[in-house]
Amino acid sequence: MKFELTILGSSSATPIYNRHPTAQVLNLRERLLLIDCGEGTQMQLARYRVRAHRISHIFISHLHGDHYLGLMGLLSSLHLQGRTSELHLYGQQDLMDILEMQLRLSNTTLRYNLIFHAVRHYLGGVIFEDDHMQVKSIVMNHRIPCTGFLFREKPRPRKLLINRIRQHGIPIEYFNRIKHGEDYTDENGNVIANDELSVPPPAPKSYAFCSDTLYDDSVASEVQGVDVLYHEATFTSDMQERATTTYHSTARQAAQLAKKAQVGKLLIGHFSARYRELAPLLREAREVFPETELAIEGRRFGI
Amino acid sequence: MKFELTILGSSSATPIYNRHPTAQVLNLRERLLLIDCGEGTQMQLARYRVRAHRISHIFISHLHGDHYLGLMGLLSSLHLQGRTSELHLYGQQDLMDILEMQLRLSNTTLRYNLIFHAVRHYLGGVIFEDDHMQVKSIVMNHRIPCTGFLFREKPRPRKLLINRIRQHGIPIEYFNRIKHGEDYTDENGNVIANDELSVPPPAPKSYAFCSDTLYDDSVASEVQGVDVLYHEATFTSDMQERATTTYHSTARQAAQLAKKAQVGKLLIGHFSARYRELAPLLREAREVFPETELAIEGRRFGI
Repeated sequence: MKFELTILGSSSATPIYNRHPTAQVLNLRERLLLIDCGEGTQMQLARYRVRAHRISHIFISHLHGDHYLGLMGLLSSLHLQGRTSELHLYGQQDLMDILEMQLRLSNTTLRYNLIFHAVRHYLGGVIFEDDHMQVKSIVMNHRIPCTGFLFREKPRPRKLLINRIRQHGIPIEYFNRIKHGEDYTDENGNVIANDELSVPPPAPKSYAFCSDTLYDDSVASEVQGVDVLYHEATFTSDMQERATTTYHSTARQAAQLAKKAQVGKLLIGHFSARYRELAPLLREAREVFPETELAIEGRRFGI
Repeated sequence: MKFELTILGSSSATPIYNRHPTAQVLNLRERLLLIDCGEGTQMQLARYRVRAHRISHIFISHLHGDHYLGLMGLLSSLHLQGRTSELHLYGQQDLMDILEMQLRLSNTTLRYNLIFHAVRHYLGGVIFEDDHMQVKSIVMNHRIPCTGFLFREKPRPRKLLINRIRQHGIPIEYFNRIKHGEDYTDENGNVIANDELSVPPPAPKSYAFCSDTLYDDSVASEVQGVDVLYHEATFTSDMQERATTTYHSTARQAAQLAKKAQVGKLLIGHFSARYRELAPLLREAREVFPETELAIEGRRFGI
C-alpha cells in the first residue's frame, strides 16, 4: 500500500532560484496529508498534479511565514471549488486566530467543516490515531514554538496462506482472527499454529518531518529507526555560527542526527537563499550519512 | 519620463491555468508602486525581474485573499534581504491588524520602517501627493469594503527653447521661472512672452485601477478621461447574474464604463477560473470599447 512523499518546496524564508517555501504531501494509503503550507502551495499542488481536494489533514509546524502563508489561500480555494468534506488542521492555537481573523475580514464562511486541533508546542505526543496511522508531534528547538511530526503506519494484518487454509478446510469466518494472529482449533480440538496459516505483513513504515530546529539530541530518540527522516539543513557547516544564532541546522548536523537515530534515509531541505547550488549541502551530509537525498520540488520518495 | 504598468497577476480568487492572483507594478518616474499583492507576488516580481527592494509604496484594494495574501511574505522577504528604506502601505485599517498579528506571532521586528496609511473605504479622496504624483482612492461597490486607486502625474515644467533663450541672452537664474510659465522682462523693460521662450510639457498621464466591483456609474465620473483604466472583468455577460450576486463585473460592463468615462485604453483582468481561454472576454469588451487589452501576467503597458 502506498506511502509516498512529494516535495512541493525546498527554500527557507526567502523563495529564490525557483525554490518555494516549505510544503510536502504525504500519501499514506491513499489519504493525502499536507505538511506545512508556505506561500504558493496551492500553485505547487497544481504544478505537480496533486489533487488538493483529496487532502484530508494539514499539519503546520510553526508560525514563520514560509511554513504557513499559503494556508489561507488554499483553504479559500477549496471553499470556492465546492469542497464539502471535512478538513482537519493541526497547528498551534494562534494559527487559528490568524485564520479566523482573515475569514472574518473577507466575510467568508467556509462551505466545509474545518476541524482545528491545537498542537501543544512544549510537549510531544500522539495528535492523531486511527486504524491506519498514528501521528505524533515532536518538540523542535527553534526561535519560536515549533513542532515536527512523526507519521507511522499501523501494522497491517498478517497475510493468509490460502493453500494451507483450504487444506485445513478452515471456514471463512475464522479468517479475520487468523489475520490477527490467532491459532486455529478445529472441531476435533486439533490446534493449528498461526504461523502455519499466515505470514507476517510488511513492517509498518514511518516518516519523520523535522523543521525548523537547532540540532537537538533529544530529537534523535524521538525519530529512532524511522524509514525516512526529513531534517532541515539551512546552511553548510562553515555557517555553523549563523545556523546556531538563527536556530537552524547545518547539513552536517542533519546527517549526524540521521546517523545517531539510525534512520533508513535522510532528506534535507529548507535551503538558505545564499546557496544557488545545492551540491555542497548534499556532499557535506553524505560524508556523515551516505543515504541522503535533496528534498527538492517535484521529487517523490517512496517510504 | 517613465509611466509604465507591469501585470503580475490576472486571476480572480482561484489561481489556475498559470494565472496568478491580482498584483500590478506601476513605474511612475522610476518610483515603483505595487497595487494589490495576491499570493505569490514576490515570486512573480522575481519572474518578471522587477526589483522588489525598489518598491516604495504599496496599495491594497481590499481584504479578499486574492488581493493581499502575498503581502506578509513580501514584507518579510524585504526584511530578510536587508531593506532599511521606509515603505508606505495603504489599505484598510484591518489589514494592519492582520500584519501585526502575523509579525508578532513570528517574532519579527522589521528592519525598515513600514508606514501604514489607513484608507477610508466609504469616502474617496487624495491619499498621497507630492511634486510628482497624486493618488486618490475610489469607492468600489463590492461584497466587502473595497477601494480602487487613481494615479495622476503632476504637470511637468514647460520645456525651454534654448536657442531663443540664448538669442535673448537670458541669464540662467531666470530659467526656472520661465519653465513655470512666467514671461521674461529684460533690463530695458521689454517683455518677452513665455510662449516665445518655452513650449508646454507633455500632458500629465493618469492610470486608474478598479477591482473588485459591480458596474457603478459613479466610478465613471471618478476616472473620466484617464489614459489607461484597469477594470475587473471577472465574467462574460452570459454570466451577468452570477457577476451581480458576487459583486463583480462582466467584460461588457468594464467596456461600458471605459466608454462612458472616455478613457484612452481599457485593460481587463481578474478572470474567473471558469475561463480557460480569455478570447471571449476580450471580444466582448472590444465590441463596446475597441481599445481594450487583456491584462495578463508579464505584459507591460506604457501609459
